[in-house]
Amino acid sequence: MKLVSYLVSGRASFGLLTQHGIVDLGKKLGDKYTDLKSLLADEKGLAIAKTYLNDPSDIDEKDITYLPVIPNPNKILCVGMNYAEKRAEFNETSSAPTLFVRFPDSQTGHKTNIIKPAITNELDYEGELAIVIGKSGFRIKQEDALSYVAGYSCYMDGSIRDWQYTWFTAGKNWPSTGAFGPCLTTTDEIPDPKALTLVTYLNGQEMQRDSVNNLVHTVPELISYISTFTHLSPGDVILTGSPGGVGKKRNPPIFMKDGDKIEVEITGIGRLTNYVVAEK
Amino acid sequence: MKLVSYLVSGRASFGLLTQHGIVDLGKKLGDKYTDLKSLLADEKGLAIAKTYLNDPSDIDEKDITYLPVIPNPNKILCVGMNYAEKRAEFNETSSAPTLFVRFPDSQTGHKTNIIKPAITNELDYEGELAIVIGKSGFRIKQEDALSYVAGYSCYMDGSIRDWQYTWFTAGKNWPSTGAFGPCLTTTDEIPDPKALTLVTYLNGQEMQRDSVNNLVHTVPELISYISTFTHLSPGDVILTGSPGGVGKKRNPPIFMKDGDKIEVEITGIGRLTNYVVAEK
Repeated sequence: MKLVSYLVSGRASFGLLTQHGIVDLGKKLGDKYTDLKSLLADEKGLAIAKTYLNDPSDIDEKDITYLPVIPNPNKILCVGMNYAEKRAEFNETSSAPTLFVRFPDSQTGHKTNIIKPAITNELDYEGELAIVIGKSGFRIKQEDALSYVAGYSCYMDGSIRDWQYTWFTAGKNWPSTGAFGPCLTTTDEIPDPKALTLVTYLNGQEMQRDSVNNLVHTVPELISYISTFTHLSPGDVILTGSPGGVGKKRNPPIFMKDGDKIEVEITGIGRLTNYVVAEK
Repeated sequence: MKLVSYLVSGRASFGLLTQHGIVDLGKKLGDKYTDLKSLLADEKGLAIAKTYLNDPSDIDEKDITYLPVIPNPNKILCVGMNYAEKRAEFNETSSAPTLFVRFPDSQTGHKTNIIKPAITNELDYEGELAIVIGKSGFRIKQEDALSYVAGYSCYMDGSIRDWQYTWFTAGKNWPSTGAFGPCLTTTDEIPDPKALTLVTYLNGQEMQRDSVNNLVHTVPELISYISTFTHLSPGDVILTGSPGGVGKKRNPPIFMKDGDKIEVEITGIGRLTNYVVAEK
């Protein structure tokens, strides 16, 4: 099952992405659930959504404006340096997961614009697998961790390298730099995230490719580690880190510029597409 | 004017802290403002609050349970390594402000318990000046920055040193480790934060003392820098960093343990007091 968040005729909604179009759950269930996060917060929410899977579609996919899959997560925790090749590029030696935080207002949806700030020429791409949490948990054991996952999505963790410095907050929170989509693919379709492959394309050219099987800290390890110190709740997002091949570490470096198309594709989820526009 | 957030008879509220007790604005203005953040979000909110300053008090201070001054900020941005002595202790060389993020659920109020996690013996104190933002802004100029401040408070940025690693997120987000209070002192009483002095006491003994005048990056510089990359809105919190003298860098190190009393006092604001309790 694939779930999406979007604007339609100026109204924020969420629904099922099917082969025939979008089943508008916001219209059908809006009295119970205001958004996808609140659907996930009901333990029966995904089962209820599933009963609409064979309904006729309400909206053509071309008539929506995608929002970030979860527009309003309580927490977005981002794991840095979690593929061997990326760690080598950045000389990372910490054995613990390195974590930073994104604010929800740095996000944008599928097929929308990524904004290159006027102040920088170092807007870089990072294709990532995003975990979306489906139920509340604290001190989650690794062996139970996957049961806390609602599903997965693609993320383009756009990074301002010359503001990234040592602690990453300033490089990772510019408006419309974190693209999240196109959809949440639920865990019934992805029982084991290790089977996924991630590829990033810049203007159609492959820039990053790796298997989620190569994560240094696996999905269960990350959920267990993070929930040791902070409570997780439905709609929370964990970005699992990016493979090697980012623009900053190429010779010469390649940064994104006005007019570029950046895409992150993950098997079983889809291809997240965004367009780079320079801030005026 | 001093504003506080609290629980009274199980109800979350906010009000004025006066010499005679608390004027319960939540009761008087609850139909317009659900909490202190929503009061700040109205540009007339503080002026309206001020009209109640001479009202008789509604509640004795001893009958409330303090909440964090702003229990639900959209953003809590924390500046690390912003006093010369602290920078020397941690060998910090970055010239840009180093920033990490706290989640709101890591906070607690004045006179409540700080929880020492069972997994660690390295719970350390950091006394800090907290800035509370009073109006929305983006790309704020330094010369305008103080007009975006609603007021100031004390903060005890409790830190789990053996989980702090390089990027700080994991060391700074444990439940009930960030004490925020006792009150928001508005800028009419603190026109220039440089005049403030901060002192941290552990069990009554002075551990940190510095003048806010010694901040490496000043309050206007921080607001301007942060608002370059992210939007600020009413109720957002900026922690300005801690002076030297933290427990980790003492010889031998001093960490907080069950039964300790930790206090952060800032001139013109008050003294934030918390009690350390070991997690069971």
